[in-house]
Amino acid sequence: MSDPEIQDIQAYMTDIGQRARAAARVLARASTAAKNAALLAIAERLDRERAVIVEANRHDLESGASKGLDAALLDRLELTPGRIDAMIEGVRQVAALPDPIGAIFDLNYRPSGIQVGRMRVPLGVVGIIYESRPNVTADAAALCLKSGNAAVLRGGSESFASNQAIAVCIQSALNSTGLPEDAVQVVATTDRAAVGAMIAMPESIDVIIPRGGKGLIERISREARVPVIKHLDGICHVYIDRDADLDKAFAIALNAKTQRYGTCNTMETLLVDAPVAAAILPRLAAAYREKGVELRGCPQTCAILSEAIPATEADWDTEYLAPILSIRVVEGLDEAMDHIARHGSAHTDAIVTEDYSRARRFLREVDSSSVMVNASTRFADGFEYGLGAEIGISTDKFHARGPVGLEGLTSVKFVVLGDGEIRV
Amino acid sequence: MSDPEIQDIQAYMTDIGQRARAAARVLARASTAAKNAALLAIAERLDRERAVIVEANRHDLESGASKGLDAALLDRLELTPGRIDAMIEGVRQVAALPDPIGAIFDLNYRPSGIQVGRMRVPLGVVGIIYESRPNVTADAAALCLKSGNAAVLRGGSESFASNQAIAVCIQSALNSTGLPEDAVQVVATTDRAAVGAMIAMPESIDVIIPRGGKGLIERISREARVPVIKHLDGICHVYIDRDADLDKAFAIALNAKTQRYGTCNTMETLLVDAPVAAAILPRLAAAYREKGVELRGCPQTCAILSEAIPATEADWDTEYLAPILSIRVVEGLDEAMDHIARHGSAHTDAIVTEDYSRARRFLREVDSSSVMVNASTRFADGFEYGLGAEIGISTDKFHARGPVGLEGLTSVKFVVLGDGEIRV
Repeated sequence: MSDPEIQDIQAYMTDIGQRARAAARVLARASTAAKNAALLAIAERLDRERAVIVEANRHDLESGASKGLDAALLDRLELTPGRIDAMIEGVRQVAALPDPIGAIFDLNYRPSGIQVGRMRVPLGVVGIIYESRPNVTADAAALCLKSGNAAVLRGGSESFASNQAIAVCIQSALNSTGLPEDAVQVVATTDRAAVGAMIAMPESIDVIIPRGGKGLIERISREARVPVIKHLDGICHVYIDRDADLDKAFAIALNAKTQRYGTCNTMETLLVDAPVAAAILPRLAAAYREKGVELRGCPQTCAILSEAIPATEADWDTEYLAPILSIRVVEGLDEAMDHIARHGSAHTDAIVTEDYSRARRFLREVDSSSVMVNASTRFADGFEYGLGAEIGISTDKFHARGPVGLEGLTSVKFVVLGDGEIRV
Repeated sequence: MSDPEIQDIQAYMTDIGQRARAAARVLARASTAAKNAALLAIAERLDRERAVIVEANRHDLESGASKGLDAALLDRLELTPGRIDAMIEGVRQVAALPDPIGAIFDLNYRPSGIQVGRMRVPLGVVGIIYESRPNVTADAAALCLKSGNAAVLRGGSESFASNQAIAVCIQSALNSTGLPEDAVQVVATTDRAAVGAMIAMPESIDVIIPRGGKGLIERISREARVPVIKHLDGICHVYIDRDADLDKAFAIALNAKTQRYGTCNTMETLLVDAPVAAAILPRLAAAYREKGVELRGCPQTCAILSEAIPATEADWDTEYLAPILSIRVVEGLDEAMDHIARHGSAHTDAIVTEDYSRARRFLREVDSSSVMVNASTRFADGFEYGLGAEIGISTDKFHARGPVGLEGLTSVKFVVLGDGEIRV
């Protein structure tokens, strides 16, 4: 399915990298107006070329079906009219976001007389490696463009034709608005060697963002020779404290588990403080039963809830991504935080309490990318946080942590304004 | 010279890493008062144990001399009374800095009703690998402690006894103030395998900061399996624009080259706009001559300055760290910025101009960690920038860029405050 003319993958990727680096220099100083014009032109092309995109997508779907891809994967692959609408709207929304690049902050006078501040700048070239959803091609291109970065995009082989059709729209839009076409390049081969080359070109690619299954992300993180913004597990907890408002606790614990099952910010383990376990668990269990959620409990939980099956040690370390919940009764805040430190994935954890001091301790001491008081873990999301967009969620601490918006694709430099000052 | 009992370096380092990880959890929630008390206790012990430290240092110096270390290295190694004073004063200054940890910022209400903000948190465990200067042991320990990170310090073999003597003071101070001794561990072996182990323990060490020669830093960056905050070249430029105030240009170009020769923010190449070359270069050359600076010029420079010797292509890419300066006459801002993009090291670059638009373009378009208008490149420094301290200068874009103070040793997490909100 890949371009038959590409023989030497390494040379092909090196060329892509060099062209991306050159385009990045132009993009870094592109005006806000030029970037927004390009984004709106991309949205317009995607709208105008719907028929072409749908035809390419049909090709991917047929080829996927004939290869025996499962229904879930085929569903992720499909570009329905509604999904194309959402993709176009997403690009328009990125155009409407404030331009992070060039923003100067913390500009202060120093005793020497110089003014020192910081200016937000692009990272340079962003490489994104993703799997089946072709809308990522447009989303990622838009976020990289807006943040002044060149993008090298490598989608899944099953969405190859769809990605290429979207790429044609993007490049013609870039071309028509005077930005370099090489600002967004979609790798035109399904050869896996392209991924290997991409993650080993520090001279051309400044950061890799893998989006997809844990296997893909772990492999890339292990092998990459450039920084990786990565998302691994989401083993999220809600801890219902003895001083919780039990109505809030009920609403949050239900929402955190059942609003969506397959997302990384879904609660996987519920921790309940012993003094309120008998009061809250039966009510919650009834609601979970209605939603079809399987409950796996510690011995104390099982003693309260006859429907709970005994949890094994492995349950506490499992991201179910499914209608399954593990429940553990704990003796107070410290035991809850110990459990989270030992079994959590430092993604998102919440406490439900009306107690001021315990809320304050939980916020400070739980070392997760999002820490919440009296709110559902499902809020851990770039849009809900007001970032305007999200290129991913980072479970690392370095550079970016938690939901990553435009700012995660930037760096800052120091700017110094003087009047002839010298150092003495 | 290393502890003879350490047979299995890998096991020894694994143990250090695990103890650092455990200490980091305690340190992350240590109060500002507890951290400051520990820092002041360290300063007090260093002061009280001067004789022991000097004795250990004498041992290092003698052993270095007998191994034939050169005079410059022996000088860096020596702990004079003045240097011990400075080391103690440095630790006291870190105690006086504001505590970055736990600071909450950008806390705003969202339409859903939740408040979303960010809290500054430690990175976890910081590994520092350094060469001859033993004062780094105290400096690095102080900065890591204040920022709530555990530290694993691995100094040069030539300063082994000095480092161990300082380590004893640090650990006894930690002990006396109730913080875990393992919060600062100084590796007690000179075996090089310890470095290899240290840079390959992502489960125990979150970031490595190498301080020393370029060879050390390149090797560590290449082989590390954890993020590295690194400093490579400092090929810094001053560009004197046609609309420069020539008195400011003279002062800045002289200061940037001659205030100190061996520092990374020293100018290595002077770029002069053609219309002012004949006016400024002879005056500058006379001043450089007085300071004993060798001048290497492009053909136009050599035509103006008889004392300049012709520069080779290699000169534009060389960090002299010596009284040598390369000079190039350019035709305007774009040629100057092209030269900087091609030959610079993205460290620190300055323009001297009174022209508003060219100053603005230089600030935006030059992609260096510090970009200056009408100020000496020598200002690129954590203290001059008001960071209060400096653990190093990063020439990377990822995570930290330019002078790195306490903030570079931290990450941020999201905090969410709600009142029972759920996601719909």
